[in-house]
Amino acid sequence: MSEAAGRRRGRSGGGGAARRAERSAVRIECAKVIERRIPDVEMLTAEVLGIIEHNAEIVLEEIGVAFVENPGALERWRQAGADVRGERVHIPRGLARQLCATAPGSFIQHARNPERSVEIGGRNLVLAPVYGPPFVRDLSGGRRYATIEDFRNFVKLGHMTKWLHHSGGTVCEPTDVPVNKRHLDMLLAHMTLTDKPFMGSVTEPSRAQDSVDMCDILFGGLDGRTVMTSLVNINSPLTFDATMMGALEVYAAANQACIISPFIVGGAMAPVSVVGTLTQVLAEVLAGVAYSQLIRPGAPVIFGAFVTSIDMNSGAPTFGTPEAAQITYGAGQLARRLGLPYRSAGSFNGSKLPDAQAAYESANSLNAGLMSGVNFMLHACGWLEGGLVASFEKYVMDADQLGVLHKLAAGVSGDEEAQAMDAIREVGPGGHYLGCAHTQRHFKDAFWRSDLLDYKPFETWDEEGARDTATLASARVRRLLEQYQPPEMDAGLREALDAFVARRKEEMPDAFV
Amino acid sequence: MSEAAGRRRGRSGGGGAARRAERSAVRIECAKVIERRIPDVEMLTAEVLGIIEHNAEIVLEEIGVAFVENPGALERWRQAGADVRGERVHIPRGLARQLCATAPGSFIQHARNPERSVEIGGRNLVLAPVYGPPFVRDLSGGRRYATIEDFRNFVKLGHMTKWLHHSGGTVCEPTDVPVNKRHLDMLLAHMTLTDKPFMGSVTEPSRAQDSVDMCDILFGGLDGRTVMTSLVNINSPLTFDATMMGALEVYAAANQACIISPFIVGGAMAPVSVVGTLTQVLAEVLAGVAYSQLIRPGAPVIFGAFVTSIDMNSGAPTFGTPEAAQITYGAGQLARRLGLPYRSAGSFNGSKLPDAQAAYESANSLNAGLMSGVNFMLHACGWLEGGLVASFEKYVMDADQLGVLHKLAAGVSGDEEAQAMDAIREVGPGGHYLGCAHTQRHFKDAFWRSDLLDYKPFETWDEEGARDTATLASARVRRLLEQYQPPEMDAGLREALDAFVARRKEEMPDAFV
Repeated sequence: MSEAAGRRRGRSGGGGAARRAERSAVRIECAKVIERRIPDVEMLTAEVLGIIEHNAEIVLEEIGVAFVENPGALERWRQAGADVRGERVHIPRGLARQLCATAPGSFIQHARNPERSVEIGGRNLVLAPVYGPPFVRDLSGGRRYATIEDFRNFVKLGHMTKWLHHSGGTVCEPTDVPVNKRHLDMLLAHMTLTDKPFMGSVTEPSRAQDSVDMCDILFGGLDGRTVMTSLVNINSPLTFDATMMGALEVYAAANQACIISPFIVGGAMAPVSVVGTLTQVLAEVLAGVAYSQLIRPGAPVIFGAFVTSIDMNSGAPTFGTPEAAQITYGAGQLARRLGLPYRSAGSFNGSKLPDAQAAYESANSLNAGLMSGVNFMLHACGWLEGGLVASFEKYVMDADQLGVLHKLAAGVSGDEEAQAMDAIREVGPGGHYLGCAHTQRHFKDAFWRSDLLDYKPFETWDEEGARDTATLASARVRRLLEQYQPPEMDAGLREALDAFVARRKEEMPDAFV
Repeated sequence: MSEAAGRRRGRSGGGGAARRAERSAVRIECAKVIERRIPDVEMLTAEVLGIIEHNAEIVLEEIGVAFVENPGALERWRQAGADVRGERVHIPRGLARQLCATAPGSFIQHARNPERSVEIGGRNLVLAPVYGPPFVRDLSGGRRYATIEDFRNFVKLGHMTKWLHHSGGTVCEPTDVPVNKRHLDMLLAHMTLTDKPFMGSVTEPSRAQDSVDMCDILFGGLDGRTVMTSLVNINSPLTFDATMMGALEVYAAANQACIISPFIVGGAMAPVSVVGTLTQVLAEVLAGVAYSQLIRPGAPVIFGAFVTSIDMNSGAPTFGTPEAAQITYGAGQLARRLGLPYRSAGSFNGSKLPDAQAAYESANSLNAGLMSGVNFMLHACGWLEGGLVASFEKYVMDADQLGVLHKLAAGVSGDEEAQAMDAIREVGPGGHYLGCAHTQRHFKDAFWRSDLLDYKPFETWDEEGARDTATLASARVRRLLEQYQPPEMDAGLREALDAFVARRKEEMPDAFV
């Protein structure tokens, strides 16, 4: 790290002309975070939550969890007081919860632009885009394997999106770049094409280390600051594999945040009941968070729950379902009782197209996410086809709906101006409010307004081509990408990042699996 | 009434063959009501609710409400203690609330099939379809004026819809029938094509009376039973017109239920703030409900709130917005504090097509409706284009989503079977749940399943024509209408209803405005 930091600090600087050019760049509007001034929904009773917590401890002690191909982890658990048999770790009742106590209730993830830094936890909700799809889809090109060019375009869209606080991670898989080098190009894109916070690589411990090293350059030394939040999936049920745990070990040691996230398709990786699934989720998160604290007490972590259910007829995962919402609400309650930031929900749907199914299912999940107290929402926009596809149109469609969440979360003011008694007096029975003084004072900011959806009269809409939402979205994607301008970056810093990527690529032969 | 009842009771009966034929009709599956076993969301603080209640009383006393062209209403208000000046009724603080106290907190609306009767109020949510559009739209015929044939098809769809408890009222305007006779054909359709509960006509006091008289025939005398719930809109701001009040007077006197419903496009008919709008809504509902109790203490009524906001750029009404959700939540809290059943939300949207916009906006409103404690949801399916259009495809799309609300509202069981500890023990780390005993016991009913949406693998979906949601919905509409069979009805009763309609049509010349 210190070598990388030295390179950053030792740069010669980009010169005055470059800095002036950068300063003239378009200023992008960006909401800070969602601050939820509305109550949490307590969907499950305290009694049921108590049962879940009790049963999760039984699971940890009697069934245990598997830490696969990871002798170091087994040794750490043994020293912490667990009963380790083979790769199975039996955690005595109360131990995991006790270890979790050192994890912070909220933390700041720094962005290279301090205005874009986010606090994750508490009453905040931070929104990040879709993560992981190997395919992309747009109206003109259809469905196809994602490339690094697609990846960069998604990062650019994220930078332009007012309601997105976070640039995310693998917004799509750049399948045209060797598997073992993708993370370098992806990180470089997040670091240079936006100044919002981002996620690191988790597909190998060495790639997590590359992520940390590049951040060390970007931030001029980390000095203990958390600058990445990365996604560590648990291989449900109850299995922690060496790849993900290896990444967690790197990140926790460097005080970088991880989302400890059971990856559950209910009926396949967890029981078909809500309470059974929540029991397993809680057991897995307790074990994962406890392990992060064994690596470094105080390491920032997030209670994750990626949960969907299965269609029992076809075996396909389904999204936006009532069971998923119940689990989202319940996991939020468990996270609050544990005092941890919570990650769940997103623009989830199983549709192949950005159509009504996609929107119903996404809206169900987005609304449940807000109301259940989610603190970090990955996949908040762009998800399609059960996560196989990142859709350009759906990205801007969902992103627009994220504005609804912002306004709803702001709560309802009861101050004198909001009471509007002057308006009601002025207008009186049978009048109308369009011209009254109160309306004039507030007409610009009174109501949330879509940047995308159609509000036109039928005749106008018809004359303009009778466009559906996906067609409007396609035009918006094109417009945003045309208008895109990169945020300022010191030329020397850019050179240092490029040099790091070039050197690391040279050190490895290409790998495509 | 007694004359009509006499006709019903005096019928000669339809004979054994007819009855046997009727008994062989397809049995339609229908959910009873939604019973909400989940908490209400208290979006506004008690302090803000107190301010709204305080201000509403000021509005009633100082500004007053207008009862237009209705000397009888003014006289009733005078006798009740109001200060009547011209057509303006100033209601002393506390009087309206005091009068509201005789309105029941919940009531049963009887259906001709007792299994379809619904209790409206308390923890129940009763769902009814779209109301009022002059146009219909379907994939094959596009957008066109609605006819009585369309109307009957919507009633048939409603009868076939498991998640719809109520047949509604003017599911679309049958514009091919004279204005002054439409109500007769519409009522006859609701009475004969389904056995679910329905709404009466409110477009003239005489039509309300026809509705009562036809119900008297259908039910063989009403005997004080409530058999209709009808929609009485308030001409916001603060105006009660003679047509709607005339209908209310007929219904309240006959102990039939009315939804007292401010019709508000925020920014036009109410202030641009949530609290200002809620103040006006509460004042209007208090005055309307109080007036219903002046007609007949104990008459069943519902606290209604049809609220949307305006797009300040174009003046168009907008739907599924955060402000509409906040008002929906707040009005629910006010209704609960007043002890009245609550009507709001629906499949609201401003889209011209059953596309993603339609679905996002509808899902936003449907979710807010459930979570805010709505007891009666009109427009729960089929609404399109700001209510100008009843869409066949959207009807079945929304209706499918109503199943999500049912499952979500059922809450989360924590019993031993739901805990699924046997399953977690059986499967253990790294296993899968598809084949375990617990899953086998529950796989049929564990998860809500769409009857419409696409869950297929991409390749199958692609081979089958890459259909979007609207295309799938179109096929479902066709299938349901093909499978439709009318519920049993005594032939003599049918004759009596037909005779009433024929007689009333003869008594009036056709009117088209």
